[in-house]
Amino acid sequence: MGRYHAASLAGYCPSAELVRVVDADETVAQEVGRDLGIEWSTSFNDLIKDESIDAVVIAVPTSFHADLIIEAAGAGKHVFCEKPISLERQPTVEAIAATRGAGIKLQIGFHRRFDPDWAAATSRIRAGDLGEVYLFRTSLRDMKPPTMEYIKGSGGFFIDVTIHDFDTARWMVGEIDEVMAFGAALSDKAFAEVEDIDNALIFLRFHNGALGVIDNSRVAGYGYECSTEVMGSKATVRVDNPSRVHMQWLTPGQAARAYVESFIERYPIAYRAELEQFALAVCDDLPVPVTGEDALAAFDLCTAAHLSMQQRRPVSLRHESGLHGVAYEMAGT
Amino acid sequence: MGRYHAASLAGYCPSAELVRVVDADETVAQEVGRDLGIEWSTSFNDLIKDESIDAVVIAVPTSFHADLIIEAAGAGKHVFCEKPISLERQPTVEAIAATRGAGIKLQIGFHRRFDPDWAAATSRIRAGDLGEVYLFRTSLRDMKPPTMEYIKGSGGFFIDVTIHDFDTARWMVGEIDEVMAFGAALSDKAFAEVEDIDNALIFLRFHNGALGVIDNSRVAGYGYECSTEVMGSKATVRVDNPSRVHMQWLTPGQAARAYVESFIERYPIAYRAELEQFALAVCDDLPVPVTGEDALAAFDLCTAAHLSMQQRRPVSLRHESGLHGVAYEMAGT
Amino acid sequence: MGRYHAASLAGYCPSAELVRVVDADETVAQEVGRDLGIEWSTSFNDLIKDESIDAVVIAVPTSFHADLIIEAAGAGKHVFCEKPISLERQPTVEAIAATRGAGIKLQIGFHRRFDPDWAAATSRIRAGDLGEVYLFRTSLRDMKPPTMEYIKGSGGFFIDVTIHDFDTARWMVGEIDEVMAFGAALSDKAFAEVEDIDNALIFLRFHNGALGVIDNSRVAGYGYECSTEVMGSKATVRVDNPSRVHMQWLTPGQAARAYVESFIERYPIAYRAELEQFALAVCDDLPVPVTGEDALAAFDLCTAAHLSMQQRRPVSLRHESGLHGVAYEMAGT
Amino acid sequence: MGRYHAASLAGYCPSAELVRVVDADETVAQEVGRDLGIEWSTSFNDLIKDESIDAVVIAVPTSFHADLIIEAAGAGKHVFCEKPISLERQPTVEAIAATRGAGIKLQIGFHRRFDPDWAAATSRIRAGDLGEVYLFRTSLRDMKPPTMEYIKGSGGFFIDVTIHDFDTARWMVGEIDEVMAFGAALSDKAFAEVEDIDNALIFLRFHNGALGVIDNSRVAGYGYECSTEVMGSKATVRVDNPSRVHMQWLTPGQAARAYVESFIERYPIAYRAELEQFALAVCDDLPVPVTGEDALAAFDLCTAAHLSMQQRRPVSLRHESGLHGVAYEMAGT
Repeated sequence: MGRYHAASLAGYCPSAELVRVVDADETVAQEVGRDLGIEWSTSFNDLIKDESIDAVVIAVPTSFHADLIIEAAGAGKHVFCEKPISLERQPTVEAIAATRGAGIKLQIGFHRRFDPDWAAATSRIRAGDLGEVYLFRTSLRDMKPPTMEYIKGSGGFFIDVTIHDFDTARWMVGEIDEVMAFGAALSDKAFAEVEDIDNALIFLRFHNGALGVIDNSRVAGYGYECSTEVMGSKATVRVDNPSRVHMQWLTPGQAARAYVESFIERYPIAYRAELEQFALAVCDDLPVPVTGEDALAAFDLCTAAHLSMQQRRPVSLRHESGLHGVAYEMAGT
Repeated sequence: MGRYHAASLAGYCPSAELVRVVDADETVAQEVGRDLGIEWSTSFNDLIKDESIDAVVIAVPTSFHADLIIEAAGAGKHVFCEKPISLERQPTVEAIAATRGAGIKLQIGFHRRFDPDWAAATSRIRAGDLGEVYLFRTSLRDMKPPTMEYIKGSGGFFIDVTIHDFDTARWMVGEIDEVMAFGAALSDKAFAEVEDIDNALIFLRFHNGALGVIDNSRVAGYGYECSTEVMGSKATVRVDNPSRVHMQWLTPGQAARAYVESFIERYPIAYRAELEQFALAVCDDLPVPVTGEDALAAFDLCTAAHLSMQQRRPVSLRHESGLHGVAYEMAGT
Repeated sequence: MGRYHAASLAGYCPSAELVRVVDADETVAQEVGRDLGIEWSTSFNDLIKDESIDAVVIAVPTSFHADLIIEAAGAGKHVFCEKPISLERQPTVEAIAATRGAGIKLQIGFHRRFDPDWAAATSRIRAGDLGEVYLFRTSLRDMKPPTMEYIKGSGGFFIDVTIHDFDTARWMVGEIDEVMAFGAALSDKAFAEVEDIDNALIFLRFHNGALGVIDNSRVAGYGYECSTEVMGSKATVRVDNPSRVHMQWLTPGQAARAYVESFIERYPIAYRAELEQFALAVCDDLPVPVTGEDALAAFDLCTAAHLSMQQRRPVSLRHESGLHGVAYEMAGT
Repeated sequence: MGRYHAASLAGYCPSAELVRVVDADETVAQEVGRDLGIEWSTSFNDLIKDESIDAVVIAVPTSFHADLIIEAAGAGKHVFCEKPISLERQPTVEAIAATRGAGIKLQIGFHRRFDPDWAAATSRIRAGDLGEVYLFRTSLRDMKPPTMEYIKGSGGFFIDVTIHDFDTARWMVGEIDEVMAFGAALSDKAFAEVEDIDNALIFLRFHNGALGVIDNSRVAGYGYECSTEVMGSKATVRVDNPSRVHMQWLTPGQAARAYVESFIERYPIAYRAELEQFALAVCDDLPVPVTGEDALAAFDLCTAAHLSMQQRRPVSLRHESGLHGVAYEMAGT
């Protein structure tokens, strides 16, 4: 993802000027730097000391996120960081507090908000064209699972996969009062052995009364799926999964379309747009479109989902809108 | 529905000969009889005493189903009856026992099993083309709600709406170990006033491990929806909602299709096919494709859903395949 | 087709009562009669002498059409006849004149007018919703060619295939001033050997100024295609080819749908509806929806197409609406 | 288009470095230069004298194309030029000869070849997956017409619109032996007044025997249409028009999708990819993917279409593959 973001910044973000790529692995740093014709180094510390630099984009293993955010905040650099901020709540809160204290901007990589399809749907929902929301339904499914090594360090299914859907749910429909999650390890015993799952259904009850359901899978097999439906009193909107190409191939008795196979294929625009929006927020001193508090809210919802699955019961949540965003708290736990 | 079935039997079921229509309301009986050029009467008793008659189709208010089935069974008539057999468990069991005791056939009106789209999907699942099932997802939504009068006597949301989806779930994927239901009254306070709901999400865990979710609504607004997806290890199948006509209408910047608005539009074939299959089962002494035991299983799942929603907890079920079908029992209740 | 029409009349046309099936081949007559539980015979002459009979449906080889129509007209029977009336113009005209003289109804089997999709599109065009028509485009393609024996006796490509599209063009858009046809024998030399073609493009200029193009094939391979687009000043309408079932089958990287493979699959309703409409016209003494004159107009357009292809030039047509329909005349030939 | 190409070169073509924008209008030159942070000038002459520059992209009114190509060739600069090279044949030939003489590369802006959808389809055709081609069908339609001022200087309908389809036809299927064009001015008398048309159908017969039809319109109304179907002996491929967003909007009884409205929306990738491919050809000394000879062939086909329409007859063409591409010659004219 670091490479991808670097290439986006170099080639597709008019409001940003990529000046340096940093990777602890010298070979990688050098290769990416050379490919993009950009200065490279292995020192994050040097980077944040560089006064000519306004902002950093962090795409490293999750365990380093919070510390790097705090260091960057200390140096007064604005930060774009991949989700989640941390696999633990405390460092998440501390990282957010550090950026707030330093008065710097922190944007989290919930890219779906920047996809033109989702943005169009959400914009019409906000304009009231859908009326009151009754039902929210979304699917996020990977074609094939990552390695078991990755799974072990992923923080678990919800924080690795569902977190995007929790953010989408909050963004499109609003805050969430109740969560109940159901999971299963179906494709491979290895998931159960590391106490993880490969398929999940997550029920939501929104504060406005609407019902919601998220379905997730690591083993969809046919392709990468990311699609949503929101049903309302005036209209219903569906964001579809596109074909890989706008092409039908017809053979005897059958018409076939190629399915997208990865998030990179599905989101040709969103990953670039989120960085451009971040750059614009930095340049023009605007609020970032996805905050640390949004990341914390999604994190808390993942925790609630996990608790719900373990205890086989719905988990209620309290949320309070404050100065800096929404604080979630699990009721009665 | 009685009229519709009568017309189907008269015009579209080569294996059946419609000989008489019966309605307690003489005006209705006469009108339908005249329209179809068929003998009519107001006496169900006369009907089942008629030795020239092999079978009866019952499409009356649910409260009469069980008694009429028992009467017909007593007279040795095979019975096709609309779902549910009863709003209570005991009469359901008794009606089934009566038909079993009399050695007559009892088929229940789960029409979806006879739709070519669903039948094609299920047939491929059974052939193993899908591999192991991971996820089952189905929607059944009405465009507009029925009258509150109807709602009050409907036996509640699950037994009136979800029952079809429970049958579909069992038919396509298999028996169900766990149910959890979430409901809400969102469109009109009148639903809450009669302690009913207008939208629901029902979670399922199948005995084979697969996860499932049913979404139902009485107020979809845009049209009648009945669509399903089953995701498996080898393939995934989706049964779509068809357009009302195979026609696109393009105006500046937009391409539109007409949506089906009712179950009658959605199922031009299934309602006729279920009766023809019943007639064939009677003529050739074959097993009926949907049994009283199937109806009882779906009924028990509705009860579990209701209990789950009331107690805000998942409800586990035990099921045992016996001589006459599947017996469900709620575990620990 | 005879069998199919007989079954439709027996089972799906409430306004008709099928009383007898006639086939010169006793085995066929007996089999169909027995299957439908209907009287059968081998004598058309007996049939038309039967005073209890109001109308006959003719589905025999084209070479017998005109004579049987004339005989039926002589006996005062209304006639539904498959297209074309004849492979020659003179017998076509004579058959029409005979029915007109006898004051009986003659309906020709242009079934597409009775399909709900086409009917919906045409109805909106007539209501003015499309505005002025600019472009008409239609495809009619068979999956596989018939036998060469059939081809030899078919009267040639245009009269066997394109005739349906000429009727559709006239019905949806209006009369035609100019035709130019291009053909090729591409899949098999046998087509060229019998001086026929297997693929064609036919250009149309309508009297109202609109342009049109028909494409036809005997060897589409992937399935049976029948679809149309009409582009107008206010809107554009597309009648699509439906899927065989409303089902998508997803395997790694691909989503597939089954294509319809034959006209029987494509038109589950139209073949029945045309007979029911004919029966209604007979019962209620209404005008038939497709007249002999419509058949003659389509025939003349086929002749113009053939001439155009042979002489490699556009052929202009004059048409005059008279008492009994539209008379076409090739200008300057 | 100049602005758009400049932005593409600046932001999306890693193999090109945009160094200067030139426009005869100082205001425009300055504005574009400032927007892109690039040097600007009003002198094409200065530009081609600049030794640090390898190549120029020409996007000016057609009447200047040929001269600028010749000048650039004289200065040894590689040239990318928008279609057509000229509204006349002689300057087209001279421009091509000049580039050939100077040993520089000339690429013409037939962008559709660089769209992923069309490229995927063509690639499978070339791989033989389609078998022998029977039918080629393509639509290119603008939502709304340009100004009459533009129409007057456009060189006529075929050279302004159909030229893209001729190139696509040659690219996907092969050389063309026969052309016949039909046109009409339907939406506005102003088209007829300038002796132009607003709708056209163009028939093609390919050298390999396949039939083809192009339909074009300046007044499609509903949106911008660019879609193709190629039917072959083994398979058929369809390149569809995409939705504007992957979103369905459902209101009572209707499901709607937004249609693309312009070529800019339809081709988010192709216009950038053609420039990147040109840059790659220059950098690595590879053949350009679309040559001046391709432009000449498309020009000649436009001329044939025009002649055919005027003389109301099919026009035959001879083509000869030579050292430098394909030379078309109208047979018997």
